[in-house]
Amino acid sequence: MSAEVHSDAKIAAAQSLYAALATGDRVALNALLHPDFVGHAAEGMPFGMGGEHRGPEAMQRNLWWRIGEHFRARADARQFESLGDGRLLVSGSYLGSARRTGNPLDAAFIHILAFAPDGRISALRQLTDTAAWHAALDGPGRLQTFDYSVSGGVATVCLNRPDARNAIDMTVAQETLEVARRLAADGTVRAVLICGNGPALTVGGDIGYFQHGQSTVFGDLIQSMTVPFHQGFDILSRLDVPIVTAAHGAVAGGGLGYVYAADLVLAAEGTRFLTAFAGLGVSGDGGGTWHLPRLIGPRRAAQAYLRNTPITDAEALEWGLINEIVPADELRERALALAGELAHGPTKAFGAMRQLLRESWSNDLQSQLAAETRVIKDTANSADATEAITAFPQKRKPEFTGR
Amino acid sequence: MSAEVHSDAKIAAAQSLYAALATGDRVALNALLHPDFVGHAAEGMPFGMGGEHRGPEAMQRNLWWRIGEHFRARADARQFESLGDGRLLVSGSYLGSARRTGNPLDAAFIHILAFAPDGRISALRQLTDTAAWHAALDGPGRLQTFDYSVSGGVATVCLNRPDARNAIDMTVAQETLEVARRLAADGTVRAVLICGNGPALTVGGDIGYFQHGQSTVFGDLIQSMTVPFHQGFDILSRLDVPIVTAAHGAVAGGGLGYVYAADLVLAAEGTRFLTAFAGLGVSGDGGGTWHLPRLIGPRRAAQAYLRNTPITDAEALEWGLINEIVPADELRERALALAGELAHGPTKAFGAMRQLLRESWSNDLQSQLAAETRVIKDTANSADATEAITAFPQKRKPEFTGR
Amino acid sequence: MSAEVHSDAKIAAAQSLYAALATGDRVALNALLHPDFVGHAAEGMPFGMGGEHRGPEAMQRNLWWRIGEHFRARADARQFESLGDGRLLVSGSYLGSARRTGNPLDAAFIHILAFAPDGRISALRQLTDTAAWHAALDGPGRLQTFDYSVSGGVATVCLNRPDARNAIDMTVAQETLEVARRLAADGTVRAVLICGNGPALTVGGDIGYFQHGQSTVFGDLIQSMTVPFHQGFDILSRLDVPIVTAAHGAVAGGGLGYVYAADLVLAAEGTRFLTAFAGLGVSGDGGGTWHLPRLIGPRRAAQAYLRNTPITDAEALEWGLINEIVPADELRERALALAGELAHGPTKAFGAMRQLLRESWSNDLQSQLAAETRVIKDTANSADATEAITAFPQKRKPEFTGR
Repeated sequence: MSAEVHSDAKIAAAQSLYAALATGDRVALNALLHPDFVGHAAEGMPFGMGGEHRGPEAMQRNLWWRIGEHFRARADARQFESLGDGRLLVSGSYLGSARRTGNPLDAAFIHILAFAPDGRISALRQLTDTAAWHAALDGPGRLQTFDYSVSGGVATVCLNRPDARNAIDMTVAQETLEVARRLAADGTVRAVLICGNGPALTVGGDIGYFQHGQSTVFGDLIQSMTVPFHQGFDILSRLDVPIVTAAHGAVAGGGLGYVYAADLVLAAEGTRFLTAFAGLGVSGDGGGTWHLPRLIGPRRAAQAYLRNTPITDAEALEWGLINEIVPADELRERALALAGELAHGPTKAFGAMRQLLRESWSNDLQSQLAAETRVIKDTANSADATEAITAFPQKRKPEFTGR
Repeated sequence: MSAEVHSDAKIAAAQSLYAALATGDRVALNALLHPDFVGHAAEGMPFGMGGEHRGPEAMQRNLWWRIGEHFRARADARQFESLGDGRLLVSGSYLGSARRTGNPLDAAFIHILAFAPDGRISALRQLTDTAAWHAALDGPGRLQTFDYSVSGGVATVCLNRPDARNAIDMTVAQETLEVARRLAADGTVRAVLICGNGPALTVGGDIGYFQHGQSTVFGDLIQSMTVPFHQGFDILSRLDVPIVTAAHGAVAGGGLGYVYAADLVLAAEGTRFLTAFAGLGVSGDGGGTWHLPRLIGPRRAAQAYLRNTPITDAEALEWGLINEIVPADELRERALALAGELAHGPTKAFGAMRQLLRESWSNDLQSQLAAETRVIKDTANSADATEAITAFPQKRKPEFTGR
Repeated sequence: MSAEVHSDAKIAAAQSLYAALATGDRVALNALLHPDFVGHAAEGMPFGMGGEHRGPEAMQRNLWWRIGEHFRARADARQFESLGDGRLLVSGSYLGSARRTGNPLDAAFIHILAFAPDGRISALRQLTDTAAWHAALDGPGRLQTFDYSVSGGVATVCLNRPDARNAIDMTVAQETLEVARRLAADGTVRAVLICGNGPALTVGGDIGYFQHGQSTVFGDLIQSMTVPFHQGFDILSRLDVPIVTAAHGAVAGGGLGYVYAADLVLAAEGTRFLTAFAGLGVSGDGGGTWHLPRLIGPRRAAQAYLRNTPITDAEALEWGLINEIVPADELRERALALAGELAHGPTKAFGAMRQLLRESWSNDLQSQLAAETRVIKDTANSADATEAITAFPQKRKPEFTGR
C-alpha cells in the first residue's frame, strides 16, 4: 500500500508529461518515463508511427518526434480519471495542422498511463482518431488554385487559374473552404483581400470540368462542389475581420459568391456581373438568392436570375452591389490599400459590426437594439476604444492595434 | 371454383375499363362490360346522372358521356382491393374541370365492381363526393372580370373592366383567386402575363361598389374581399413559373398587388403608382407592406403609405419597383414577348429560383446556402440542365423544354 | 364578540377610505377615522412625511395633503385580507407622477388598518417602496436637454444642447426615453416632429462627457447610456403616430437613431450623416445595424460602418435614407408643416401602417397578407374611413379626426 502512488501525484506526472511534450523538453521527458517504459500507439497512425515502442528513447524517436516532423500539433489533455487498477485515463485532442498541407488537425485521443512504484510513467497506450490524422495529410496540400499570402495584417487571397479565367472546378470549390479555414485560424490577419489573377475575377462554374465525367446528369457532381464551396462562404461570413473583394472582367455564376462574401467591393471599369445560372438550366449557388435581393432589391435580383441580364459596373454602383469603380490598372493597388487601411482599424469593433450587420436580417428591431447594447459594451472596453477616446480631445489620429 | 375469375384478371379488366373511359373507346367498353351490366351512380350526381343505369348502353349514355359533356375529367384509379365476396373495390379521384366554369374538379370516388364468370364486368357501384361535382359547376363560371387565355406556354391574364378602370370589386377579388388556382393547376403554363384592358392596369378598390350596401361601416365588406384577394396572391407567390406584369395608367391601392405579384414588371411611359390607402382612411392590402419596403426601401415605402405620394415611372425604375419603361403603345407586345421568352426558358430552374428568392427573406445566410445546395442538385438533374451543359461547348443556344 | 366589527364591514370602510382619499373628501375622511386615530407612514417617505401622525387632522395635513402637494397620485388598493387579530391588510400601489418632474410614480404599498369597536378606523400603518417615491422626484425633472411642446396635435421634440451640438450625454440618453414615454402616453398627439436646436441635429455621443470619469475603460458608462437610449427608440418604434425628423448639420453616431426613428426625414441642404463609431473603436448604437442595411442596402451600410465615410445629403436622398432635401432656412418650417399635415391624417390608419411596415421584416409574405387583412378590417371600421369613403363620390376632401 505504501508503494502505491497517490492519484494526485499521477495526475501531476501526467500533466508534466504533456507540458514536456508541448515544449519538446527531452530532459523532462526522460525524468518522467521509467526506463522500462513501453508505449503503444494506435495502429492506424500515419508514417508507420503505430504499434509498440519499447523504452523512452524509441517512444520519442518513433512517435513523438515523428509527429513533430509532420505536424504542428500539441496534445491537449482535458480530463484525468483514475482507473480502478491504478492506471490513469487521460482524454483530450491533438490540435494543430499538418505541415505539408496546412490542413487542420483535430484528433480525439485517449491515453492510458501506467505508473511504476516510484511514480514514473511505465506505460502509455494511445488510442486516437487516426482518420483525422490522415485527413489532415490528405487535403489539397499547397493550394493549387489560390495565391495565399499574409503581410502587414492583410491576407491576400487570389484566385489563380488565369488561363481558365478562374473558372470554378472541384479544386477551387474545396480550396475556397480551405482558404476560409486558414483565414479563420490565423489570428494575425486583420483584413482580407479577395482577388483574381488573369482577365476576370472568376467566370463561375467550369463547364468543361462538369463534362469530364461520363454522365449527362450533373446533380451529384454539382452538389459535391457546392457543399465545400458554401461551407467556405459560411465561414467567411463569420470571419472576425473585414473582407475586400477586387472584381474585374466577367464575374459570373457561383463566382459572384466572392463578391457577396465581401464587406466592401471595388470593381475595375468595365466589370460585368452575371448570374449565368438560367443559361445552364440550374437554380444557382454562391448565396446569391440571399444576398442579391438585399443588395440590389428583389426586382433587379429577379431579372438577374430569370433573364440573366448582365449588371454593368455603373449599375452595380448605382444599385449598391459594389462600393466604387476604379481604373482597371489601379484595381489591385487600390483594393490592397483599402484592405491595408482596414487592417489598421479597430479590429474588435469591425468584427462586432460585421456580426451585427449579418445578424440584422434575423432580428427584429428590439432584439437588434439589445444586441447593439451588449456588443458596444465589449468594444468600448477594448484597448482600441480607450486609445480612440483618449486621442480625441488631443486631436490626434488614434493608433489601433486590433485589441 | 374453377369459374372464379382470378383477382389479377379482375384488376386487369378494371384497368382496361379506366383506360377505355379515358380515351372514350366505345369498342373496348362494350367488350369489357357484360350485357347484363348494371351501373349505379351516386344519387347526388348533377344533371340527373345519379341512380341505376341498366345495360352498357345506358351506362355510357346516361353517365359516362354525360360527364364528358359537362366536364373535362378522368377517373384516376389509384388502389385496387379484392373484396371477400369476389368483388373489386377501386378507389381514386375524378380529376379535371367543369367545362362551363373552368373550375377544377377533384372528387374522390370508390367504385365497387362485380364480375361475371366469364371475367366481364357485370356491375359498377359508384360512390363519390358529389358536392365536389357541384362546386365545380357552381363557381363563378366563365370569368367575368378577367380575360384568361393560354397560348404557347404563356397564360395571359388581363383585368377586363375597362370602363371602371379595372377597379376591384368583389368579383375581381374572387376571380383573382380563381385565376391563381387555374394557373397553379395548368401544367402547360410556363409563364404568366398579367395585364389590364382599358386606360389603367387597375385603380384599386371600387369605391362605388363599397357604397352599394346600406352600411357606412366597411370593415366586414372589405375583409370579405381581401380574404380571396390575398389567397390569390399567396398562390401566385408560390407558382412554379415566372410572372410578368404590364403596368400602365394609374396603378393604385390593392391593385398594386398585381405589380408585387410579378417577378418582372414592364411599365408604359407615364404610369403612376399610388398606394391611395391613406386617402380612404384604411391601412392597405395587396401585400404592399411586405413588398414595398423590400422593393424601394423603408423610407420611400413610408412616404408612399403615409403621404400617398404618387411614384412616377422614372422613380419606379430608379428605385427598383419595375424593370423597364416602354412606350405605351408597345407595352402589351413587349410584355408578351418577355413572357414568351420566359416560357421558353428552363422552367424547373425558374421555379426553383422563384422559391429561393421568395424564401430568402425568412432564412439566414447559412440556411439559404443549404437551400441553394439542395435545389441546385435537383435542377442540375433536369433535362434542361443536361441540354444546356451539352450545348455549351457546341456553342449553340440550348433548347429548353421545361423538364 | 358582539362588539367585533364584521370583516366585510371593515373592507367596506377601507374602500370608503380610498375613495375619499382619491377625491380629497375631508368630510368623508373625518367620518371614517376614529378621533383617536394614529397613522404611521414609512420612515423613508420624502418631504418629512414619514413616522407617526396622531389624530385624523395630523394624518391629513402631514401625510395625505402633502403627498397631493408633490404628486399627482392615487392609492390603488387591490387586495384586502383580514388578519387573525382583527386588523385588515390592504395591498396595492401608489400610481401617478411627481408634479415637479413629471416622472411616473409606481410605488407598492401595504396598509395595515385597525378598527375601533364602532367600526371606524383607529390606525393605519403604511409600508411602501419609498425608493420609488424618491426616484419619481429625483429624475431629470423638467427636461434639461429637449424642448418639448404639443400644439395642434403635433408634438415637437427638439434636442436643446446647441452649444454642444446636441451631443448625447447621460441626460440626453435618459431624456430620450422620458420623451418617448411622454409621447406614448399623450393621446392628443397625432404626429411627432424631432429636431435639433443649434448647428446640428446631433453629433452623437458626447466624448467630453465620456472622459469625465476616472476610468479609461468606457464599457460600463456607454452601456448605462445605451440602455435608456435604446428603450426610447424601442418605444418610438411602437408609437401609434407618425414621426418626422428634421436633420441638419452633422448627424453622427448614435444620433443617427433620431433619423432611423422617423417615418419621414427632411434634411437641410448640406446635411452629412456619419456613423463615426469606427473612429472611436466601438461597434455602434442607435439601431443603425438594423436600419441602415434596410434603408440604403448592405453594401453602403458596411462602408458607412467600416470606413466611416460620410453620407452626403444627395447620397442620402438617392439611397433612400431621407425623403427630401430642403433649403436650410426652411427646414424647421417645412418639417413642422409636414408633421401638421400628418396630424390631420387618418391617425388610426397611420398607426396600423406603421405597425405593418415595422413588423414586415419579421413576417413571411403569407403572414403579412394575413396581418393586412386583419388590420384593414379594423381601420375600415374607423370613423375616418367612413368619412373618406363618404366624401369620395362627393368629390370633397375628407376631414379626418383621428378616430
